[in-house]
Amino acid sequence: MNTFGNIFRLTSFGESHGAGIGGIIDGCPAGIEVDMDFIQNELNRRRPGQSKITTPRNEADKVEFLSGIFEGKTTGTPIGFIIWNANQHSSDYDNMKALYRPSHADYTYQQKYGIRDHRGGGRSSARETIARCVAGALAKLALNQLNVSITAYTSQVGGIKLEKLYSEYDLNTIEDTPVRCPDAAKAEEMITLINEVKSKGDTIGGVITCVIKGTPVGLGEPVFGKLHAALGNAMLSINAVKGFEYGDGFDVNHRGSEVNDEFYDKDGTIDTRTNHSGGIQGGISNGQDIYFRVAFKPVATILMQQHTVDQEGNEADIKARGRHDACVLPRAVPIVEAMAAMTILDYYLLNKAR
Amino acid sequence: MNTFGNIFRLTSFGESHGAGIGGIIDGCPAGIEVDMDFIQNELNRRRPGQSKITTPRNEADKVEFLSGIFEGKTTGTPIGFIIWNANQHSSDYDNMKALYRPSHADYTYQQKYGIRDHRGGGRSSARETIARCVAGALAKLALNQLNVSITAYTSQVGGIKLEKLYSEYDLNTIEDTPVRCPDAAKAEEMITLINEVKSKGDTIGGVITCVIKGTPVGLGEPVFGKLHAALGNAMLSINAVKGFEYGDGFDVNHRGSEVNDEFYDKDGTIDTRTNHSGGIQGGISNGQDIYFRVAFKPVATILMQQHTVDQEGNEADIKARGRHDACVLPRAVPIVEAMAAMTILDYYLLNKAR
Amino acid sequence: MNTFGNIFRLTSFGESHGAGIGGIIDGCPAGIEVDMDFIQNELNRRRPGQSKITTPRNEADKVEFLSGIFEGKTTGTPIGFIIWNANQHSSDYDNMKALYRPSHADYTYQQKYGIRDHRGGGRSSARETIARCVAGALAKLALNQLNVSITAYTSQVGGIKLEKLYSEYDLNTIEDTPVRCPDAAKAEEMITLINEVKSKGDTIGGVITCVIKGTPVGLGEPVFGKLHAALGNAMLSINAVKGFEYGDGFDVNHRGSEVNDEFYDKDGTIDTRTNHSGGIQGGISNGQDIYFRVAFKPVATILMQQHTVDQEGNEADIKARGRHDACVLPRAVPIVEAMAAMTILDYYLLNKAR
Amino acid sequence: MNTFGNIFRLTSFGESHGAGIGGIIDGCPAGIEVDMDFIQNELNRRRPGQSKITTPRNEADKVEFLSGIFEGKTTGTPIGFIIWNANQHSSDYDNMKALYRPSHADYTYQQKYGIRDHRGGGRSSARETIARCVAGALAKLALNQLNVSITAYTSQVGGIKLEKLYSEYDLNTIEDTPVRCPDAAKAEEMITLINEVKSKGDTIGGVITCVIKGTPVGLGEPVFGKLHAALGNAMLSINAVKGFEYGDGFDVNHRGSEVNDEFYDKDGTIDTRTNHSGGIQGGISNGQDIYFRVAFKPVATILMQQHTVDQEGNEADIKARGRHDACVLPRAVPIVEAMAAMTILDYYLLNKAR
Repeated sequence: MNTFGNIFRLTSFGESHGAGIGGIIDGCPAGIEVDMDFIQNELNRRRPGQSKITTPRNEADKVEFLSGIFEGKTTGTPIGFIIWNANQHSSDYDNMKALYRPSHADYTYQQKYGIRDHRGGGRSSARETIARCVAGALAKLALNQLNVSITAYTSQVGGIKLEKLYSEYDLNTIEDTPVRCPDAAKAEEMITLINEVKSKGDTIGGVITCVIKGTPVGLGEPVFGKLHAALGNAMLSINAVKGFEYGDGFDVNHRGSEVNDEFYDKDGTIDTRTNHSGGIQGGISNGQDIYFRVAFKPVATILMQQHTVDQEGNEADIKARGRHDACVLPRAVPIVEAMAAMTILDYYLLNKAR
Repeated sequence: MNTFGNIFRLTSFGESHGAGIGGIIDGCPAGIEVDMDFIQNELNRRRPGQSKITTPRNEADKVEFLSGIFEGKTTGTPIGFIIWNANQHSSDYDNMKALYRPSHADYTYQQKYGIRDHRGGGRSSARETIARCVAGALAKLALNQLNVSITAYTSQVGGIKLEKLYSEYDLNTIEDTPVRCPDAAKAEEMITLINEVKSKGDTIGGVITCVIKGTPVGLGEPVFGKLHAALGNAMLSINAVKGFEYGDGFDVNHRGSEVNDEFYDKDGTIDTRTNHSGGIQGGISNGQDIYFRVAFKPVATILMQQHTVDQEGNEADIKARGRHDACVLPRAVPIVEAMAAMTILDYYLLNKAR
Repeated sequence: MNTFGNIFRLTSFGESHGAGIGGIIDGCPAGIEVDMDFIQNELNRRRPGQSKITTPRNEADKVEFLSGIFEGKTTGTPIGFIIWNANQHSSDYDNMKALYRPSHADYTYQQKYGIRDHRGGGRSSARETIARCVAGALAKLALNQLNVSITAYTSQVGGIKLEKLYSEYDLNTIEDTPVRCPDAAKAEEMITLINEVKSKGDTIGGVITCVIKGTPVGLGEPVFGKLHAALGNAMLSINAVKGFEYGDGFDVNHRGSEVNDEFYDKDGTIDTRTNHSGGIQGGISNGQDIYFRVAFKPVATILMQQHTVDQEGNEADIKARGRHDACVLPRAVPIVEAMAAMTILDYYLLNKAR
Repeated sequence: MNTFGNIFRLTSFGESHGAGIGGIIDGCPAGIEVDMDFIQNELNRRRPGQSKITTPRNEADKVEFLSGIFEGKTTGTPIGFIIWNANQHSSDYDNMKALYRPSHADYTYQQKYGIRDHRGGGRSSARETIARCVAGALAKLALNQLNVSITAYTSQVGGIKLEKLYSEYDLNTIEDTPVRCPDAAKAEEMITLINEVKSKGDTIGGVITCVIKGTPVGLGEPVFGKLHAALGNAMLSINAVKGFEYGDGFDVNHRGSEVNDEFYDKDGTIDTRTNHSGGIQGGISNGQDIYFRVAFKPVATILMQQHTVDQEGNEADIKARGRHDACVLPRAVPIVEAMAAMTILDYYLLNKAR
């Protein structure tokens, strides 16, 4: 269950404070030119410490490919890779060894497996997502050749929310703000909020919006492999994600007559006048833009005293030290893109198998 | 891709106006007593024509089991079943044969497969969900023995919304109202709204809330088989579903310090004081109630004139005749429960394999 | 685990004396013309009672398709089907209810599941293979369009064995003899042997050889999805099969210098001078004929007294009554072909997904 | 398709002359003590250069675990590992870059993927099997706790063949001879033959027999997941394997009355008097010893001149230089055991999920 995908498959491994995080990408099409700068840049986008508002922990996350690439191109054989952990011998966590941090996975892992690597959350740490970014970067390279583009951005932090649809923003400006938000004014508000939250040692939730352009008609495998179900599954597998909606989503107070997407003839091709469907009908892409929103809870690690119990059930207080990530949204943007890229490429390949 | 689940697996078949809808349930534990009345009742709950507010099309949906049951008990071998379609030779749809109904799957199926059974939506019809109710009923029977209960209800229709958390309602009253809503006053409002929408030939969206009680600690397979990701995937595979959230979901305007679920010692067992996590931490059930919400768009079939194109791209008008389902929510309640039951049982069995 | 295949997938159900045997074929390419006569003929080839040497039990095995076919063509949606059992209420087996028949699956099913349908072997009956023949027939229809042909024949019964390679026989004559053997003289010997065995109420084993012509280069998914491993897995899933070998197989007393298949230029295309590899190198088809051999033990049901125990472990004698199949080989020929056809089509579709 | 198993799953990566060979083991039960000496010894058993009769290429194959193990025990999270290649920058193969070696996978990989790492066979090299030995060693450690033991030995080299059943040999003596054969006299003959073959630069095929003792009743998932089909699939995925048989296998010249395994009461437990079934009935283990045989062709790499073509189809001569493995059987013994161990553990875990 550490494998994602059907044809293009990522299997990942690694704990927060073990040797490293890595994975195997199987089913990657052969002949893709591996643009190492692009891949490293995707990892950098995810990396903490990029700006004052994210966690300053400096991880020099360099990916090392171990197989499946020959003379700069993918060969169709499995691509092994690893990102070594800089500081795996940390004893920072010794004092929390036996404590269950609230809203973390310490308790559930311990109960399920009877043993756990407690250091930094072990396998349940969000550091695991770095493997997704590597595989997502490769998927993006493959999708580039198909003219499919995937763009995510922070659309809400706490109560500060972009009210307009994605199409009303200039998505080229996303990387211009440290929160990865295409609305510069709202971005400033978000930054102010995050800094305030951060100064208290607290954290705040938010929403990421993602847009996929250029998807061909026909991706999706009804009835249990609907494209949006696969996207939802992908997003919900990201740490701290609590919700997924596509198209009109939870905005359900509408009549069918208002939100049905009528077809029309657009210069000889069939188009829809609106896109409430979010680019997917009956679980299959219809060629329109696919867009969806992903809800993130505030990160559980806070620098404030909390109440909890230890493994024996004794009540205790707990307080994390050091640095923390007051708002994970900006860093999660490339992860959302990576999962979307893997899903779309996987379904593109699945659709070829007919 | 017409298969759902890992160990407890449903593979389904059938078109709206073909011979019937059926499936094969593989991996069902042996020795489950097959309570036929219970199963038939689950199908009845889903059936249209139960009340004035749902579609009056009368389908006598009787399930016929074909294998896997011997002397009233499951044998561990695959359980084949079929629900015959009463009216498979309908020519009602002949006039719409070449037309793409707005926000239906006609266009995407035709483009993906190059051929489609156009009658009543064919495979993309919601009639397919009847197979899910059969498998879900069996899963419920198995879960009963584990003291796991699953209850869903209509929590929003159009703008009429239950504001309180599930725990503040008496879930035993759900079946008392035709909309399956535990708030009798809101239920009346919903009914009024649905009747108004229905009289216009229009449709309206809404939200279903689902609660799972009694889940043992430890269900969930990180990192790509997180329990909530599996539930989300299950819900998003249901026709007309546009969103899924669990725990606090899209209600993200909170600080970590507000929504972290602190552990405490409750008479010798470890408990949490709050349940913002929705019963799942790190993708694994923690023994608290699991709850989530599912958004449904208004059904695409409306009895109003709409604009569209035909398969050749010629512009045309289209208007469905006869009966329609103004609000699918009440009928979808048992389907949500069925998908939840299958997911929980599947993950229960998966968790045994370690 | 009642599902076979990756893209083209058969899930089957049914017991020997239940309602019927059926299945769901998912992932069948859309647009295949469903030649019902061809399919029925494939079922007839498998049917007992075709001649004096096979079991005279007369089963009128008519397949009824339930979905996935529209106006004579496959639609890409799942194809449900059933073959009803003529005599499901048989009490013939009541006297053997609690007895474990030697070398049958009675004991292992009972131990694994704690319950079993004892009538005629229930799920473990070879009657299950009829579902394979339906799916195999559809696969053959799809492969016909790709000019892939699959032919199996009886190459050994007891000690009577065809010594020459498949290429030295006229495979068009296979159906001319009731044992499905292309060597008329050997066929006569086989028939004589089978009749002798049959007269004693005994059974005899043998070998089936299968040849696949026209496979394109490139089918096979190393390292764990090698084409011959998939074929071996397929064959070993057939009742009574005890061995599988391809190319030179167990004929291992050779030097590399003798059996390496040298490449040469054959009128502008790359060919091999010999085919010891059996058409597969490194797990991937090389365009040469694929050929393999499948060993069948004598059928366990004999009309002779045997010793055994009952479910409580009490010693007992057992003797089957009525009719039996002295040599299953002729009937198994279409089943071998069916499994090969499904495997090749599945791998053809998998290979498109890159 | 570089993944093996259902619950206990190995995904492997790596090319002969790339950075290394590695993999991820997912689904390994938590709490297994990781005996590093045992694991390294399993790798050593597979390593070439152990004696004069195997290839003297000296690979110091040390496994490095990267995750999933904490304080000496498995944690239930994925176990990443790598064995670095000592000599990855070899240019030994430059002269054969464009040539298709007879009976190797050069041609099929090039045709399938349009690109290949030609150095030493790349992904198709038998060096890949080292990852299997790592996973197999972990599986053996888990099976030890269940009292399941797995032992393989060389039972045939060329025409020199052990004629007796496994039960007539002392399996504790297998490691005493460099060919891993429990019959010391035959072992001497085999060594003489191998040395003769080796001196000519040629290779020779053979057979490995494997015995599994202590398997509980009930492992196997009919009808498409029969235990012997899974074992056959596992064995056929090993490089150079051409055939698999279990129990009586291809020894089909017997009557049912001769080879049916009668049940009897053995001191209160149900036993069989004979074991022609090879420990599996109806695809499910019956508690008797499981035994099977695996056929290996002579290795394709010979130090003799052969004819072939290059990628453009031009005819050419080819002659490998340096060292070669005249008989792969002794080294393949631990690989057969590793694949058997993974299969049995996987099916043991699957069987728990009911």
